[in-house]
Amino acid sequence: MKALIINEQGLQVAEIQQPIVESGKALIKILASALNRRDQWIREGLYPKIELPVVPGSDGCGVVIEVGNELDQSWVGERIIINPNNNWGENPKVQNKDYHILGMPTQGTLAEYIVVPVDRLVKAPEFLSNEEAAALPLGGLTAYNAIVNKGELAVGKKVLISGVGGGVAQFAFQFAIAAKAQVWVTSGKEDVIKKCIALGAQGGVSYKDAKEIKSLGKSVGGFDIIIDSAGGDGINPLLEALAPGGKYVLYGATKGLPSTLNLRNIFWNQLSLMGSTMGSDQDFSEMVDFVKKHKIHPIIDTVFALEEGVQAFDHMKSGNHFGKIVVKPS
Amino acid sequence: MKALIINEQGLQVAEIQQPIVESGKALIKILASALNRRDQWIREGLYPKIELPVVPGSDGCGVVIEVGNELDQSWVGERIIINPNNNWGENPKVQNKDYHILGMPTQGTLAEYIVVPVDRLVKAPEFLSNEEAAALPLGGLTAYNAIVNKGELAVGKKVLISGVGGGVAQFAFQFAIAAKAQVWVTSGKEDVIKKCIALGAQGGVSYKDAKEIKSLGKSVGGFDIIIDSAGGDGINPLLEALAPGGKYVLYGATKGLPSTLNLRNIFWNQLSLMGSTMGSDQDFSEMVDFVKKHKIHPIIDTVFALEEGVQAFDHMKSGNHFGKIVVKPS
Repeated sequence: MKALIINEQGLQVAEIQQPIVESGKALIKILASALNRRDQWIREGLYPKIELPVVPGSDGCGVVIEVGNELDQSWVGERIIINPNNNWGENPKVQNKDYHILGMPTQGTLAEYIVVPVDRLVKAPEFLSNEEAAALPLGGLTAYNAIVNKGELAVGKKVLISGVGGGVAQFAFQFAIAAKAQVWVTSGKEDVIKKCIALGAQGGVSYKDAKEIKSLGKSVGGFDIIIDSAGGDGINPLLEALAPGGKYVLYGATKGLPSTLNLRNIFWNQLSLMGSTMGSDQDFSEMVDFVKKHKIHPIIDTVFALEEGVQAFDHMKSGNHFGKIVVKPS
Repeated sequence: MKALIINEQGLQVAEIQQPIVESGKALIKILASALNRRDQWIREGLYPKIELPVVPGSDGCGVVIEVGNELDQSWVGERIIINPNNNWGENPKVQNKDYHILGMPTQGTLAEYIVVPVDRLVKAPEFLSNEEAAALPLGGLTAYNAIVNKGELAVGKKVLISGVGGGVAQFAFQFAIAAKAQVWVTSGKEDVIKKCIALGAQGGVSYKDAKEIKSLGKSVGGFDIIIDSAGGDGINPLLEALAPGGKYVLYGATKGLPSTLNLRNIFWNQLSLMGSTMGSDQDFSEMVDFVKKHKIHPIIDTVFALEEGVQAFDHMKSGNHFGKIVVKPS
């Protein structure tokens, strides 16, 4: 079968052996898969515990072709998405040590076929196209845990989505709009802010401008929830833009570590700084229900053929996208 | 009446006019009052918005002598403690802008008499001495909000109380022991650690030794809750001593601001860094109920006469105490 593989020579399209279904597992014909930053980081050697060669890809929508057990026969022919969690563990709040994400070390979704445990299958929401369904899993899960569980998203809350162009941020934005929160965004791009306003945002400012962020916070009376994956020295102006009692939820640190932290602001205003990453199987199920309930269509930036996989990764690296980058076997 | 006052010349015992009861208020004869670091900070000019002259003191136990309204008559003769909150506001999670603590700008408890609103009165728990009851209010309230509300204290949880010699930390320690948590402590003093072990702690290490703190965390499988008021660069080893999903609750920053923050540890392990300060009127009421239910006796270090008030403050400044410093009118 055709697949995108990352090996010592880099990323390339290759012909590899089709995986074989085993007991408790299902063979999926991939209809569409989607990229996450994680995939590009693995390509760049910037992810922890990289094992090569690997077929990356944590997001996929496909059709079940064959199952290993008679009991699972009813899955055959179903259009599904794949829960990208493996071995979350028993604590609903945090993954255990053996946890890993689909697409390294095990084969990921950027291929024509994949074999996954049957308990990872979730029926694809009917109102979503293959591309939209493929775009949902990892970004949707991460956003859900960050904004719904940690942020305690609710009607009317004042929410700031930092770096809204990112894959997770985009879902956090859509979830917040769906939940009837009041939503503001930051982005490095004026046109992305305009798109978000067209989609229901109250407004937005550049994430590069600490003063603008603080003054936006002041003008809205402080945000109840801020969602961020940049970290770095941008963390303090974001924390200063929170309302007393507000929550800053961090699911990444692409700008590195800050050179200080205004602790007095944190304790006096009873702020919370909450780390978040992925989410439990229960969160995945709740996230899909939330998407179905609110008829949320993931935003798609570009669809590439599997053969154009290298261009798809390069497009992600460029950062010139708003919405998910989808890859389809032909 | 006699009172301790802080004016431009510093702290001194002085003769001032006894306050007069008004409508909605009660005149209290003080039986005992207690010091908080806040009082010493006001003396040193290190507290925000200092207004001089002032009679400091946020903690007090006394007897109601007179009330301003006929309807409040039943309070007369009651032994009470004073809720040190003024104008908390409507949000149970965070104080509003007009919030202030008893003992600046209004007259505090370090005097023979005080007038406070009747709605600030709470009956003193009967099993507590005057000195113990006086020691409870502000430290107990702050500890309760930090460890019970923010930390979600529960049976069996692994708790680390950093700098256990402090007034709030001491209550957090006692509350955690009462709740049947597994409790460890840090202190700069070997004998304080020994005292805590005698009171039920599992063990303790020096707060100065980042390696020891991390290795203690590792040996217990990570703490579920850490309570700290030091901040500074000690924050990162404490965060690294948390279990995945753990909570670090900060109610002060006596060591200043950290020079970095390990954000990757925070998001990957889904840690929470929660600021906390004082607590609502509801928290005060719940705290007193908790103390009554568990028959918690605040730890008293030394009792000074009101005339020895300057020595009492100097003793607090020295840091050579374990337990509350109480001041009694003669």
